[in-house]
Amino acid sequence: MNDFRLYTPTQIVFGRGAEEQAGQLIRSFGGTRVLVHYGGRSARDSGLLDRVLRCLDGAGLPHAELGGAVPNPRLSKVREGIRLCREEGVDFLLAVGGGSVIDSCKAIGYGVPREGDVWELFEGTARPAACLPIGCVLTLAAAGSEMSDSCVITNEEGWKKRGVNSDLCRLRFAALNPELTYTLPPYQTACGCTDILYHTMERYFSGPEESEPTDSMAEGLMRAVLRAAPRALEDPRDYEARACIMWAGSLSHNGLTGCGRGGNGRIGDWASHQLEHELSGMFDVAHGAGLAALWGSWARYVMDAAPERFARFARNVMGTAPGGDSREEALAGIAALENFLRSIGMPVNIRELGVELDEENIRQLAWKCSFEGKRTIGSIKILDREDMEEIYRRAK
Amino acid sequence: MNDFRLYTPTQIVFGRGAEEQAGQLIRSFGGTRVLVHYGGRSARDSGLLDRVLRCLDGAGLPHAELGGAVPNPRLSKVREGIRLCREEGVDFLLAVGGGSVIDSCKAIGYGVPREGDVWELFEGTARPAACLPIGCVLTLAAAGSEMSDSCVITNEEGWKKRGVNSDLCRLRFAALNPELTYTLPPYQTACGCTDILYHTMERYFSGPEESEPTDSMAEGLMRAVLRAAPRALEDPRDYEARACIMWAGSLSHNGLTGCGRGGNGRIGDWASHQLEHELSGMFDVAHGAGLAALWGSWARYVMDAAPERFARFARNVMGTAPGGDSREEALAGIAALENFLRSIGMPVNIRELGVELDEENIRQLAWKCSFEGKRTIGSIKILDREDMEEIYRRAK
Repeated sequence: MNDFRLYTPTQIVFGRGAEEQAGQLIRSFGGTRVLVHYGGRSARDSGLLDRVLRCLDGAGLPHAELGGAVPNPRLSKVREGIRLCREEGVDFLLAVGGGSVIDSCKAIGYGVPREGDVWELFEGTARPAACLPIGCVLTLAAAGSEMSDSCVITNEEGWKKRGVNSDLCRLRFAALNPELTYTLPPYQTACGCTDILYHTMERYFSGPEESEPTDSMAEGLMRAVLRAAPRALEDPRDYEARACIMWAGSLSHNGLTGCGRGGNGRIGDWASHQLEHELSGMFDVAHGAGLAALWGSWARYVMDAAPERFARFARNVMGTAPGGDSREEALAGIAALENFLRSIGMPVNIRELGVELDEENIRQLAWKCSFEGKRTIGSIKILDREDMEEIYRRAK
Repeated sequence: MNDFRLYTPTQIVFGRGAEEQAGQLIRSFGGTRVLVHYGGRSARDSGLLDRVLRCLDGAGLPHAELGGAVPNPRLSKVREGIRLCREEGVDFLLAVGGGSVIDSCKAIGYGVPREGDVWELFEGTARPAACLPIGCVLTLAAAGSEMSDSCVITNEEGWKKRGVNSDLCRLRFAALNPELTYTLPPYQTACGCTDILYHTMERYFSGPEESEPTDSMAEGLMRAVLRAAPRALEDPRDYEARACIMWAGSLSHNGLTGCGRGGNGRIGDWASHQLEHELSGMFDVAHGAGLAALWGSWARYVMDAAPERFARFARNVMGTAPGGDSREEALAGIAALENFLRSIGMPVNIRELGVELDEENIRQLAWKCSFEGKRTIGSIKILDREDMEEIYRRAK
């Protein structure tokens, strides 16, 4: 087990009607003027936004509203939010939506108390020094941003997608009501389940060494998601399945499944995520689907660095019959996961994602992902620009 | 899945040398004058206490010392700590030890800002309103008090052992260095592993309904402890085994394994714990050993209320071969756990614990545990005073 630090201060309020507690939660954390940030029309049309605003009114909390956060949330909206918060004297941000809205809030939270340009944090030329307190009413189980230290923003100038990690942006509270995800379309449900699985998998595949109890718990978490996903697709109003997916989404990205894991000086592998960030930055595809399209190619490319780890995944998560050597078991596990992904309507290559990559695209993606050849990615196997090109190529 | 709330704000610093960070952690949480509370001679003899005090000196933190916390920590020591903190103007408590020292710190933390007598909180006639901030350097993996909201104190007048639960006492940080548990004697190691297992089991057996991903993760956690305990007994310096046990100890009692569980309006069952509290209050036996001695009797007494749950435990945790009906599977699982307990040197009845119970003892224990007949305990099956007597009797 590697040394680790874990900090999960987000207060979780889970269950039917959890959103009704937003006002009193904001009060308990000292908020007095709130920016309510959301995405498209659905929050308003469903009546959720009105319910939340009434709840803030009931708690005597004045509020401003900002809609329009989009998947792969944009820097221009973040800048709009920062201006609005300053004008209105906002001291608490409430995200009503999924990971995109939360990440947009986090970036706004970093930006408001900051003198310099917020994008510098994402370029890595400056570190966050403060963040406005944030809470959320979650409507989409996927990104896990409600408990994570992560924030990913896309700069429309050059379509650069960049992330910054810091405990400062960890939410004060997350109100998790599984019923709010009943209306999620099947494709988005499947994308969310995929994203959740891969948040745990990125940590699980972060090196060959074992670390208990993290590994056994992570395997239990992944198996639970594998069982719940088809149930939620079969019956979108299956409360138990929706609840399992929602809670798994938070636990998969709050750091818990990474405790003691890591290798090559990195906690988690994250190569699949970084390869996917460029893909969805360039083609604006759904993040979960992009991960599904790339993962098999990544897994087969790196598995020889830790065949035992992939074999353990096959046995303990996918339940593929043991037999053959570790390499054969590993390959069977990778194929089993791809079969699962197909069964929930996810692509397992980039063509199935609806994107035709040519060699020029591949060169560009790897160029961006490697920060113009200046960084490597991955921990189970360190990948340079040429490795990245090959993984994109084999995922075509 | 039941509705739940989870709040785990304790910052975890895990690994070799974690205790060296205590000074800077206290500073980061605003502490300026520290009471260092510990137990017996071992903290001093091992050199740990000196190392911690030097670390506080290095961080420029003045400190007072209070030794002498004992297993089943006593109210008189708590009162001594409260007086000392007031005299010295202490604003941060540092526990160096295990659950007893931490619980003693929590009670001191409640007492310092309080006008009335601290025991009122444990009698339940008042609720905690504030608590001094607390951190710990853990030397014993067992009670899970380093992340829990629980504090149990024994009042020597009448040997009453009472607990109070509140988020206010949750630690600011816990420095977890598995190496500090290398010198723990085998019996204490086994008692610790038993306590850890039962913290998850109390939640797992809290009702017949299932809740994923909590159940699958809890099963992974329990399996990991079942594997690590014999390794730590075989080689007390097995870092991986000690690390697994230590981290499992924190996760088993921070609320995570209870998310969505519960029944009959109670989160977790806790009957075994409450029955044991009276036993160790009266006979001063080790808490883990007391749990081991009582559990089989409790389990066989209540299992018909949820045979499927016990059968799932048998299959997924104990790995006993499926076959027969749920009842037979359940009984096989209970027997398998008793075999495991025997294998690590734990008693599976009260005689093996070194205590000969007579009918008068049984009557007294149940009388106290039922608050003189005024409360029931348990959630998987509600138990009244007569049920308690019968469970003690069958555990003789």
